[in-house]
Amino acid sequence: MTAQTQRPDLLIVGSVAFDTIETPFGNAEKALGGSATFAAIAASYFALPRIVAVVGEDFGAGSRHLFEERGVDLSGLQTIPGGKTFHWKGRYHQNMKDRDTLETRLNVFAGFDPELAVDLKKAPYVFLGNIGPSLQAKVLDQVEDARLIGLDTMNLWISEAAKDLEQVLRRVDVLFLNDEEAFQLTGEPLVLNASRKILAMGPKFVVIKRGEYGALLFGETLCLFVPAVPLGNVVDPTGAGDAFAGGFMGSMAAAGAVNRSTLSRALRVGTTMASFACESFSVNALSRLDPEKIDGRIAFLESMSAV
Amino acid sequence: MTAQTQRPDLLIVGSVAFDTIETPFGNAEKALGGSATFAAIAASYFALPRIVAVVGEDFGAGSRHLFEERGVDLSGLQTIPGGKTFHWKGRYHQNMKDRDTLETRLNVFAGFDPELAVDLKKAPYVFLGNIGPSLQAKVLDQVEDARLIGLDTMNLWISEAAKDLEQVLRRVDVLFLNDEEAFQLTGEPLVLNASRKILAMGPKFVVIKRGEYGALLFGETLCLFVPAVPLGNVVDPTGAGDAFAGGFMGSMAAAGAVNRSTLSRALRVGTTMASFACESFSVNALSRLDPEKIDGRIAFLESMSAV
Repeated sequence: MTAQTQRPDLLIVGSVAFDTIETPFGNAEKALGGSATFAAIAASYFALPRIVAVVGEDFGAGSRHLFEERGVDLSGLQTIPGGKTFHWKGRYHQNMKDRDTLETRLNVFAGFDPELAVDLKKAPYVFLGNIGPSLQAKVLDQVEDARLIGLDTMNLWISEAAKDLEQVLRRVDVLFLNDEEAFQLTGEPLVLNASRKILAMGPKFVVIKRGEYGALLFGETLCLFVPAVPLGNVVDPTGAGDAFAGGFMGSMAAAGAVNRSTLSRALRVGTTMASFACESFSVNALSRLDPEKIDGRIAFLESMSAV
Repeated sequence: MTAQTQRPDLLIVGSVAFDTIETPFGNAEKALGGSATFAAIAASYFALPRIVAVVGEDFGAGSRHLFEERGVDLSGLQTIPGGKTFHWKGRYHQNMKDRDTLETRLNVFAGFDPELAVDLKKAPYVFLGNIGPSLQAKVLDQVEDARLIGLDTMNLWISEAAKDLEQVLRRVDVLFLNDEEAFQLTGEPLVLNASRKILAMGPKFVVIKRGEYGALLFGETLCLFVPAVPLGNVVDPTGAGDAFAGGFMGSMAAAGAVNRSTLSRALRVGTTMASFACESFSVNALSRLDPEKIDGRIAFLESMSAV
């Protein structure tokens, strides 16, 4: 299933960043991170990720090499001479779920203005990672003939850019968000009612990411669920949601059709890639998988819910 | 599947109480509640629940009738002349999950000393509802030849009666508890590791109840999951955990065998009965079901996780 040949193009726009992370059990200093990074590495086992993002001159050959090893296309990655790459610093609480942002330095990301090359505009699958909705819209303006468009968002944009978000939501097929964000966006505390309101806003499908509790997908006549992989060791959950969305979109691209079966499998692929993302800092675990390991975890998820 | 004839005996010990409940959306005054009540009504669609509990003289014919309509055996329900029934008063927060206990009047329950009649001692299935572990042990001392014993507990007993709880855990087959309680009992924040520790304490299976997020079951070589039914209307979640356990144990009793398939079905039955418990105050919804309605919701759960 994870054939490396003839992978369909998956355009991924988002952040490529350096993360400095403290957890109660360890630390990482300026490790490769960002929404586009996690999504692209996760998707790379299923599709050909083509990143549109911006980095500074401090983004070195080592980081590039990591993408290249996974066959990620970096032709859309702008490098700003003399600029510094987006840097996020955060600290996780004892429960490894709640976290505090200690520092956010947008650096070159503050001037990010995505311009797509001709070949990128024709990507059949598009994932708009968690960046401002007006930037997401600007990418969509340039995209032609996309078959499936996914969008991830967060509490910041729901509160600070509600109108822009509403406008871009009308133009996408799949919205990824978590329980609290669904509540924040709709005012509905129950996930079923929140999802119905979101579907009325435009997306054909809404995927509610619930971390260690799994994920739900709602469509007009569809309700699917996948549990999270129970993990014995959580090193760093940063990027798990991005890896989920990247795995989901990559799986949909590989499937080439949108139906109950492909969506159900995409949920399992997403939660599988999210589980690998949690097992190391940065993309260290996520970038070193093989098809057998991925398939084994997907099969385990299937066995957990087997009738 | 929900045959009313020849239901196997399921002994249920726990509280039968009156609940006064405030939610942001409504109130109930001295409504029928208690762990044994919710468990017995939920189990009644699958097994013959035989309650062992205590009530006061204020426990009227109307409450009794509700049990009798569901074919619940009350021969083990002691009535204390001149006594008052256990009364719990609580208030739910806006999120309908967190709640404050406003008042707990144990009344006749303070002197509860379960003595089983000869025929009750021979029940093949036993559910020890959420009461003090020394009382649970006292029931187990009297039980003969039980095929499957389930036990529910809570944070209060884990902190106040840890030794008694550890002792009784060695003697049961299935432990029901929630995420936080599993963490509290084992010191392990990850549910997989917590479950492994719990299995080492005695139970063959541990069921982690996660409310709106579903439920997990772990055995030595088993990991099963069922999502919660997404509800469009939550009236009162009181008793949902007891209804879950009652449905689970009733389903296991009806199945008559302990294996992957019967445990998986019992999880779906449990989460289904919990969902009905949330849709009204007291057992108003839970006591008025028919097999078609129950089967429909079980089938929906199966479709949610279908591969």
